[in-house]
Amino acid sequence: MAFKQHLEAVCSQVEGSVACSIMGFNGLPVDSHRVQEPGMDLDGLWVEYSSLFSQIQRAAETMQGGQVKEVAIHTERLTTVARLINPEYFLVLALSPDGNVGKGRFALRIIAPQVAPELS
Amino acid sequence: MAFKQHLEAVCSQVEGSVACSIMGFNGLPVDSHRVQEPGMDLDGLWVEYSSLFSQIQRAAETMQGGQVKEVAIHTERLTTVARLINPEYFLVLALSPDGNVGKGRFALRIIAPQVAPELS
Repeated sequence: MAFKQHLEAVCSQVEGSVACSIMGFNGLPVDSHRVQEPGMDLDGLWVEYSSLFSQIQRAAETMQGGQVKEVAIHTERLTTVARLINPEYFLVLALSPDGNVGKGRFALRIIAPQVAPELS
Repeated sequence: MAFKQHLEAVCSQVEGSVACSIMGFNGLPVDSHRVQEPGMDLDGLWVEYSSLFSQIQRAAETMQGGQVKEVAIHTERLTTVARLINPEYFLVLALSPDGNVGKGRFALRIIAPQVAPELS
């Protein structure tokens, strides 16, 4: 299955989805699917978050917390769930603040191992 | 109600709680309650996370995402939910990886406005 189809499947399953992407920790998107106009600089936000995800990873490892599997950030205008695929890539799903975060987390947990073999 | 009682109330309500604290964005804890031995440097982790929370806040504001209300970080050994109280302080709850994150998020959302008047 192409990356796009995985990303479309997540957005169609999860109520309140705005966009879903596969991102590299270098800040470059591999593929994206957008279903709503976010009304903000989503691409810029994800580049910032990819750098922060790396910093969170380093902090957790230093303090013996183990590998970071997921980071969820809730702002006034957007909820973002990022899930590790492998040390180079992660999935990120943006939701409206009233979106179904639980279902979003579940959908990313399911597709991460499905896209991983294509990204290694 | 003293801070400690609020923190104890959160830990007693939420299955899998390890510890709950009120932290300043300067990295200094205001008060803490611990119910389990985390097996890692939790104080160090929270100092790191307080700096990261500030960076996430700046990134979200720059990209018009609005104020950051909550950040949840899931690592292999610990889940951490941090909730903004005001621009200077936040609540943080550490849970075992199988802890009840949904109830933890709910408990922090309820007590944040209760402790806020005592921290302004």
